[in-house]
Amino acid sequence: MTQSRTTRLQCLSQAQLYVLIDGGFSADEFGRRVSKLVAAGVDILQLRDKTLDDRSQLERARQLRELTAATRTLFIVNDRPDIALLSKADGVHVGQEELSAQDVRQVIGPDRLIGVSTHTIGQAYSAVAESADYIGCGPTYPSGTKQFASFPGTAFLRQVVREIHLPAFAIGGISAENLPDVLRTGFRRIAVSGAVTRAADAVTAVGQLLDQLRAESQ
Amino acid sequence: MTQSRTTRLQCLSQAQLYVLIDGGFSADEFGRRVSKLVAAGVDILQLRDKTLDDRSQLERARQLRELTAATRTLFIVNDRPDIALLSKADGVHVGQEELSAQDVRQVIGPDRLIGVSTHTIGQAYSAVAESADYIGCGPTYPSGTKQFASFPGTAFLRQVVREIHLPAFAIGGISAENLPDVLRTGFRRIAVSGAVTRAADAVTAVGQLLDQLRAESQ
Repeated sequence: MTQSRTTRLQCLSQAQLYVLIDGGFSADEFGRRVSKLVAAGVDILQLRDKTLDDRSQLERARQLRELTAATRTLFIVNDRPDIALLSKADGVHVGQEELSAQDVRQVIGPDRLIGVSTHTIGQAYSAVAESADYIGCGPTYPSGTKQFASFPGTAFLRQVVREIHLPAFAIGGISAENLPDVLRTGFRRIAVSGAVTRAADAVTAVGQLLDQLRAESQ
Repeated sequence: MTQSRTTRLQCLSQAQLYVLIDGGFSADEFGRRVSKLVAAGVDILQLRDKTLDDRSQLERARQLRELTAATRTLFIVNDRPDIALLSKADGVHVGQEELSAQDVRQVIGPDRLIGVSTHTIGQAYSAVAESADYIGCGPTYPSGTKQFASFPGTAFLRQVVREIHLPAFAIGGISAENLPDVLRTGFRRIAVSGAVTRAADAVTAVGQLLDQLRAESQ
């Protein structure tokens, strides 16, 4: 279990593969899926499900906490500092239309992590100013999970590598196929959803991504 | 400003008219509407807007707090203890699929109020057991604001009057026209939305409802 801010920041500093999962399964099926991802070596798991009601979401969050407690996998809740607090999550991730990092900090206290989605370099600088612990940068490519109007793409990633000194995860349509292009920007951290959760074999998909990420980090 | 639990409970014990409003207006228009309702004597205002993003919802909540701070009108946030905390609301109202009263209490602390929507006498007893401060009981009649599969109606209200000793607000399609039927159950507290917010003149609508409620309470 990662409890102190120091331990959490340490895990974060080494994290390369961040996976977003939804909770739309039975408790058993959800448990099996999460356990596989944790065993496969996913560094961060985020519960992100806009369709679940609050009560079910908290149930899944508590399950996720239990399944990651004795591991090195960080567990992050999307959008909701209240659910993060109640489930004892390692942190909260917010987008530009969600609560600000500053407001989230007021609810969750000093020890948990805060991540912020950014789509422009201006938003990345703002996240730094708001004391976010990490940022997501994208969308990099079109994705089956989420629809976007514009794509800052790899140009944005290059800019972040040059200018922002905060753990930054490239996100949006990243797969084993286009990962080499992402790595060429200098990014060594990615966040994926469909590439892992919709893969025929999630464990193999995680292994393949981690291999590529680690090969470049040596 | 109502700050202590005692003051809040005092306001609650005298409250008869509870109005749910959404935040889908400009800040100016929202401010005008809220000020009118407060001046007209609404006892409790709940911000309930499932369409607003979190950031806008918190903005409206903070505005509502400012507009009610120097008044006797209680301000309640729907569903979200985090937003209630950040906006310094008087309390949180949850439904059967939202966070439990017990979980909400953990986030908002001992001083704020918790309300729970109930549709059966069993749920009303559970709300009492969970230390809710008040309950909503309904739906009483079909409503333009929210769709329901079944209507416990006035039979449920009569049962609550007989068995439950907690401030209880009848909700669901209540208007000046059917209010006499609600009052005949023994209920002296109602929660409305459209009957006030969609009225040609909100102030007149509030006055009319309050007159009926007070006439029966003497």
